[in-house]
Amino acid sequence: MGTHPHRRRFYLVCYDIADDDRREEVSDLLSGYGPRVQYSVFEAAVTGPEAYEELTRGLRGLIEQDEDQVRIYPLRVPDLDKVTVLGNRRLEERDDFWIL
Amino acid sequence: MGTHPHRRRFYLVCYDIADDDRREEVSDLLSGYGPRVQYSVFEAAVTGPEAYEELTRGLRGLIEQDEDQVRIYPLRVPDLDKVTVLGNRRLEERDDFWIL
Repeated sequence: MGTHPHRRRFYLVCYDIADDDRREEVSDLLSGYGPRVQYSVFEAAVTGPEAYEELTRGLRGLIEQDEDQVRIYPLRVPDLDKVTVLGNRRLEERDDFWIL
Repeated sequence: MGTHPHRRRFYLVCYDIADDDRREEVSDLLSGYGPRVQYSVFEAAVTGPEAYEELTRGLRGLIEQDEDQVRIYPLRVPDLDKVTVLGNRRLEERDDFWIL
């Protein structure tokens, strides 16, 4: 997807964290990157490869390697409005966070 | 992304389900579509628009509209190997399920 330094990229970050405190630290970190769309799922916007490295470094520093898992899926901008949402339960949505 | 009837498409399905029994029914349904990569996250493969309708209809039939939420994100095949996974906690992975 190229590495244009100033292009904003979107990711879906989901996590299974065994410990409550660690889980809270992870969600605190991710809340600076985008909306918490579900209990353990954030949409994150990152501008440039260094910022992506910073995100993953930050997450690595918080998790317990053998007890936790974080998955970071690239999301393409054209697909952001092809997300199907079923049910009204709501934490945060994209428009609480970004103007696209 | 076009609607070629026989093309296999991939999705990331994540859910917040309030009730334990309903949550189990949702995971049972999704286990027929692909690996459970995290506690409330599946990767799902669907071939054709009717199968996608069947998946969403099945999920709608299981959830409680005002208490639950399911999000279905399109995943592009080229992006499947750009997923970053941090940590060794492991439920199921793609290669337990599909040969790509």
